[in-house]
Amino acid sequence: MSRPLKKLAVLGSTGSIGRQVLDIVQAFPDRFIVTALAGGNNGSLFIDQLSRFKPKFMYFAGKLDTPSNVKSLSMEEIACHPDVDMVVVATSGKAGLNPTLAAIKASKKIALANKEVLVMAGEIVMKEARTRGLQILPIDSEHSAIFQCLTGETNHVNKIMLTASGGPFLNYSESMLADVTVEEALRHPTWKMGRKVTIDSATLMNKGLEAIEASWLFAVPLNKIEVVIHRQSIVHSLVEFADGSIKAQLGMPDMRLAIQYALSYPERLTNHSLPLLDLAKIKSLTFDRMDYSLFPCLTLAIDAGHKGGTYPAALCAADDIAVDLFLERRIAFTQIAEIVEKTLSLHESINRPTLDEIIKADEWARDTALAILSKVD
Amino acid sequence: MSRPLKKLAVLGSTGSIGRQVLDIVQAFPDRFIVTALAGGNNGSLFIDQLSRFKPKFMYFAGKLDTPSNVKSLSMEEIACHPDVDMVVVATSGKAGLNPTLAAIKASKKIALANKEVLVMAGEIVMKEARTRGLQILPIDSEHSAIFQCLTGETNHVNKIMLTASGGPFLNYSESMLADVTVEEALRHPTWKMGRKVTIDSATLMNKGLEAIEASWLFAVPLNKIEVVIHRQSIVHSLVEFADGSIKAQLGMPDMRLAIQYALSYPERLTNHSLPLLDLAKIKSLTFDRMDYSLFPCLTLAIDAGHKGGTYPAALCAADDIAVDLFLERRIAFTQIAEIVEKTLSLHESINRPTLDEIIKADEWARDTALAILSKVD
Repeated sequence: MSRPLKKLAVLGSTGSIGRQVLDIVQAFPDRFIVTALAGGNNGSLFIDQLSRFKPKFMYFAGKLDTPSNVKSLSMEEIACHPDVDMVVVATSGKAGLNPTLAAIKASKKIALANKEVLVMAGEIVMKEARTRGLQILPIDSEHSAIFQCLTGETNHVNKIMLTASGGPFLNYSESMLADVTVEEALRHPTWKMGRKVTIDSATLMNKGLEAIEASWLFAVPLNKIEVVIHRQSIVHSLVEFADGSIKAQLGMPDMRLAIQYALSYPERLTNHSLPLLDLAKIKSLTFDRMDYSLFPCLTLAIDAGHKGGTYPAALCAADDIAVDLFLERRIAFTQIAEIVEKTLSLHESINRPTLDEIIKADEWARDTALAILSKVD
Repeated sequence: MSRPLKKLAVLGSTGSIGRQVLDIVQAFPDRFIVTALAGGNNGSLFIDQLSRFKPKFMYFAGKLDTPSNVKSLSMEEIACHPDVDMVVVATSGKAGLNPTLAAIKASKKIALANKEVLVMAGEIVMKEARTRGLQILPIDSEHSAIFQCLTGETNHVNKIMLTASGGPFLNYSESMLADVTVEEALRHPTWKMGRKVTIDSATLMNKGLEAIEASWLFAVPLNKIEVVIHRQSIVHSLVEFADGSIKAQLGMPDMRLAIQYALSYPERLTNHSLPLLDLAKIKSLTFDRMDYSLFPCLTLAIDAGHKGGTYPAALCAADDIAVDLFLERRIAFTQIAEIVEKTLSLHESINRPTLDEIIKADEWARDTALAILSKVD
């Protein structure tokens, strides 16, 4: 039985996730075809991707000599194009917001790697998806794990246990944290990721954003989502059901497994280039309670999630600015949380915001975070 | 919405599993009602169960003054009675075989705790079940775990990892094993179970029988079922799928969770008397490769499973005799394997046996095992 190719639009193709999405596509030429690529920077890689995957459509944020055989469209136009079956949202920050909504409104399959989409606008996005009976397939390992554990289950859940490696600084004291260098913060113990998400993992902001995202994605209240320290990054998350039974998803820390699952769902494809887990070799899986006091970014994120409104959008924006400043060596590692906290303390949130109001909160928080810096300087 | 009570026949109600089945029934009087009880020994407990659950029908293997308000039927008659929705097969040994087949032929729901049913007659039983589109719901923790991991999955599996605590003698040398007492063998580190299964857990015969049972239940070849040592008995088993993703089911070692899941499937019921797992309290889950050389019973079982025919029936019967002899202090712990091995070496297996041929192999193996003993004596 020959099966039709799944036509993919890969938004954010030059980023860490985007490149791994294309690795999976290349491994299954009889399953997937790329009909559109969108990139934001790294023009030479993008040109290379265009020549390898020969999409019909493209979007590039920067300057680029568009090859003659590919048509330039906006990301929103790509997301709802009839020649696209599935939109892979691997952009970063708020860039994924409008394309995701456009894709949902066109009833496309969605594979979502961009956390901010649901953190900033979870209520709007999930409402549009549910109206159309669309499932959003998560690409993050933790959310993919939860999704896999929920497959076939019909009852409500007791709680979700989101595992966290704890990043490179789990046992650091406050004074040690203040002296952390950019190089140290970029050295994640288990995962290879982009720079922004690696810093967010070191501050645990990333885990807070994941908790908010999980809450929207799986319609589970934030207070039923628990962060558990699991240093080995083998158990990607766990779900406890109504009867107390717990299911977990395990695998080597390799994003491609979650990416492939989202692309091929509900099927699972054999891919010999993915590493297999040998439990007897790993020997021990450890679990520890999270000490929230050492990682203020995690608490800030969970608080913003509980408060709702435009707080999560302001959180993302302030964190984006603060992480940039840290990467530029203009602030200390511990100042990331300080800038986010000050920004949020000044924020006037709007309840059940529109998309415009969310975007405005984002812009306000960026300006405010920078203004806070100039006062600190 | 009021929901009809599920009418249960509990076969083997006075055994360890049977008693826990009745605990679950008692916790959910609006879900389950016992319409039939069958017990084999412990008449006073059975009388007590009759007065507590007031079934319409009963079967008792031994002598009993049958109360006037309950009708005596055979287990086969109970298993196919119109007043029964689900047959819980918690008998031990071959006693469960005919009632299970009768229940399947009457298209009843089956909750199966009796390993020997599938080990002895897996091909016959599963063929009858599949013909009718019936699912057999496992009650054993390991099989329940695998069943839960497979829920909602449509693809074939790479392998099943059956976890084994390793029992009380995991790190014993051969000479230490020879001196093991009955009391030591009955002291299982993590599970409270009946005497026969506790000894089978100490010899690892139990894990071998579980592997054969899993192979039939989930239609997975025996060579794709791996035994992994997991001392804590928290991860009840794992499944690796085609893409290398692994799902696991976890919980405190308490049979009632698996029992309740089988009774309520596909629903999950909240039961505050079941213990919850606190991973941060457990701290570490360990996994080790199985050293087959120290546990000949495991190898004997796996070999018998691979050979098929009437070998598994002969294995069960010889083991039953040998464990009895050990419990009666007539043979040493290490002689259990010796008796089983000698019996199997003398066995002339029949391929694709009928039920009669299976029962004859069982009888032959019992006689042979006893004859081997008299030569050893």
